[in-house]
Amino acid sequence: MISDRVLRELTNLLGPENIVTRRDDLIPYASDATHLSYMPDAVAFPGNAQDISRILVLANQEEFPVIPRGGGSGKSGGALPVRGGLVLSMDRFNRILLIDPINLIAKVETGVITSVLQEEVEKLDLFYPPDPASIKICTIGGNVAENAGGLRAVKYGVTRDYVLGMTAVLPTGEIIKAGVETAKGVVGYDLTRLLVGSEGTLAVITDVILRLIPKPASTRTMMALFHTVSAAVETVSEITRHKIIPTALELMDRLCIDCVRSELGMSLPPQCGALLLIEVDGDKALTKREAERIREICLQSGAMEFMAASRKREAEKLWEARRNVSAAVYKLRPDKVSEDVVVPRSRMAELSSFLDALGRKYNLSIAAYGHAGDGNIHVNILFDKNAPEETRKVDEVVRELFRKVLEAKGTISGEHGIGLTKAPYLDMEMSRPAIELMARIKLAFDPKGILNPGKIFPYRS
Amino acid sequence: MISDRVLRELTNLLGPENIVTRRDDLIPYASDATHLSYMPDAVAFPGNAQDISRILVLANQEEFPVIPRGGGSGKSGGALPVRGGLVLSMDRFNRILLIDPINLIAKVETGVITSVLQEEVEKLDLFYPPDPASIKICTIGGNVAENAGGLRAVKYGVTRDYVLGMTAVLPTGEIIKAGVETAKGVVGYDLTRLLVGSEGTLAVITDVILRLIPKPASTRTMMALFHTVSAAVETVSEITRHKIIPTALELMDRLCIDCVRSELGMSLPPQCGALLLIEVDGDKALTKREAERIREICLQSGAMEFMAASRKREAEKLWEARRNVSAAVYKLRPDKVSEDVVVPRSRMAELSSFLDALGRKYNLSIAAYGHAGDGNIHVNILFDKNAPEETRKVDEVVRELFRKVLEAKGTISGEHGIGLTKAPYLDMEMSRPAIELMARIKLAFDPKGILNPGKIFPYRS
Repeated sequence: MISDRVLRELTNLLGPENIVTRRDDLIPYASDATHLSYMPDAVAFPGNAQDISRILVLANQEEFPVIPRGGGSGKSGGALPVRGGLVLSMDRFNRILLIDPINLIAKVETGVITSVLQEEVEKLDLFYPPDPASIKICTIGGNVAENAGGLRAVKYGVTRDYVLGMTAVLPTGEIIKAGVETAKGVVGYDLTRLLVGSEGTLAVITDVILRLIPKPASTRTMMALFHTVSAAVETVSEITRHKIIPTALELMDRLCIDCVRSELGMSLPPQCGALLLIEVDGDKALTKREAERIREICLQSGAMEFMAASRKREAEKLWEARRNVSAAVYKLRPDKVSEDVVVPRSRMAELSSFLDALGRKYNLSIAAYGHAGDGNIHVNILFDKNAPEETRKVDEVVRELFRKVLEAKGTISGEHGIGLTKAPYLDMEMSRPAIELMARIKLAFDPKGILNPGKIFPYRS
Repeated sequence: MISDRVLRELTNLLGPENIVTRRDDLIPYASDATHLSYMPDAVAFPGNAQDISRILVLANQEEFPVIPRGGGSGKSGGALPVRGGLVLSMDRFNRILLIDPINLIAKVETGVITSVLQEEVEKLDLFYPPDPASIKICTIGGNVAENAGGLRAVKYGVTRDYVLGMTAVLPTGEIIKAGVETAKGVVGYDLTRLLVGSEGTLAVITDVILRLIPKPASTRTMMALFHTVSAAVETVSEITRHKIIPTALELMDRLCIDCVRSELGMSLPPQCGALLLIEVDGDKALTKREAERIREICLQSGAMEFMAASRKREAEKLWEARRNVSAAVYKLRPDKVSEDVVVPRSRMAELSSFLDALGRKYNLSIAAYGHAGDGNIHVNILFDKNAPEETRKVDEVVRELFRKVLEAKGTISGEHGIGLTKAPYLDMEMSRPAIELMARIKLAFDPKGILNPGKIFPYRS
């Protein structure tokens, strides 16, 4: 608990308009996309790095937790105040400071909404590729903290690949610059990439320098239907074998298709067991040829149907349906645990058979969709919280899934991070010496453990 | 000094055939591409990660320095045993363990020569883009340790962008896996990217998982001549403004041109003051159009001449000449200090005028060449070690250069690292809190400071 004296000090620091302590006002900051809920003691709205520095100095002195928060759209609980304390809302860090078409960089405060930045850079015919499904509500800071991916990662990579430098406030209050504003730089340890994906546990990032690229001249969206997930993912390998790297290569299984069927804007044959959404972009003549080649490959690999979106609106409808899958699967059961596993592309068919067997074994619905081009599958285990016989099984299902994924040389999280919800499983993937090394790194940044405690590490520190 | 007792222990550990202590045999391991020289006490040739683990445990116990070494082609002294100790040659880690065309990865031991890996992957129509000029002698491990760049970084990025995961031996002896074997992964802190570019000071990396991409279908090489460096670098900005990202966009100034004139295989007009070597790659029709567009842009921007290499051999000759510049500038003076600065693309003309004035002010020849597409210019300050009036000036020239580069929002090292030779200047770019944070990270890995001491940090630890 933060004492009244400390709350008064925070109020003096930030002004009464920038601190919230009323219980009703705190509720929106208690939860995120995980649907879990932990009440903070207060929420602060700092206006600049100096404010954050002062807050962190006070937090060290008084030993209360500080939890940075972007759009609250995280899927592993990174922004949840699990031990109470002060939520640090980055809402006021909402300025795009620079978009530079010659040096191909943007300088952006971390509270900027990802889609807002994308729209601004596209006005200058530039492109910022990372596109998590929550793009309209998530922030650049949250994307950086979680190293967010998205649909276009197959071709363009993830958030990490676009962060060149940053301003960050260390847990002990020092404000540092890391990285560069140029295309290259190798000065000292790569603090920039260490902070990318550190889930708000090592520093509070206040602005970032992002790399931009030219906007692709054209885009083509296609959809292929298959009888089975295995046939669909074998097609993904086949596309790769032909040296084509699409912009996006998304999979939905039968359960997911059923949940968004009405949104796709076309009738699908009932025997359709899997769907691939495929996008290519770039030079107009080239995308035309690639699309033709992909059509051939899909049909040769046993696609039941293949459609090319002829209009922008048709394509947008498909992508909108894809982005809605995560929410739509609640039609199946009231609750879900959503995993974010990755396996090598060549082992997706094996994973798919495994998921079928797993669902049968535990008598639970398991819906799979996601970034098949990366081997990154979002596995949704559906259940009802009020049915204890279902709830009891979920952890064991997750553990079986992770064991399989790791045996297949995969990873337990492709783009959602570890945060709170995956922390109990971290040691399935990482060895004790590696986790202990990470704990020493945490200590090097945050000796009192005040910044976002209770995240990532499986053992209570 | 490593005592005879400890040398006997090392010999027992590795076998007498894998340890060298005779002074004559040590000489090749005393220096690198910096031409500096520091004698080690011994050189070890470990055969696997367990060997390295045992050596490091012994080094902690007996407190002697261990210095990992790849090809010895580093330009900042990263492999030099400045405090004596044991050089750890990675020569025996020379196996390519896997090239997987479906999952687009290679698994490689870190002693593999970079060009050997490239040739092997190209046999499968795959591509590993990073291409430092030392490509025929440098190793993947050295590239990873220094985060090496190269000519193709403009379009394809640097070594960091291709490392997905690794096996590393911590200075305290634990063998860890970091990162993933898949396209994506966000499990725990990004130890992989922290180790990339850590210059052999945090861990000994024994194998890496590298990302591959499809081999571009075609390549076109062009050369444009300009009266001045300013005109050449303005053309670079102009190409970017037209949303073309060439594979390589290399600059040579008049002094560099003079040094490789005979190797270019064509006569250049005497009034030629700068040269751009330009490469585009990808789809055949697209590269043809891009090459035409680049020709127009060059001529509109005042190029004196523009030539397209019509044959592969002609293009190879140009690139060979480019790779030889670093050595060829010794024709001007017997010694040089080679800097590796980066400025924003838009400020290269300003840097060029500054270098002219700097050379005049100090009456020293300054030859500039490098990766203009990235703003990454290798500035060679030429002098004669035996002329004290020249030697005295060099450090001041470097400091003036770095002040200018930093004022222009640039960085003092784009791809060569800090190592030994740039360590005295680190605090010109990084603040004290950032350097102290790095020192705490070093301590978290290497509490006794046995791994590659005397590198990166400007203060003696």
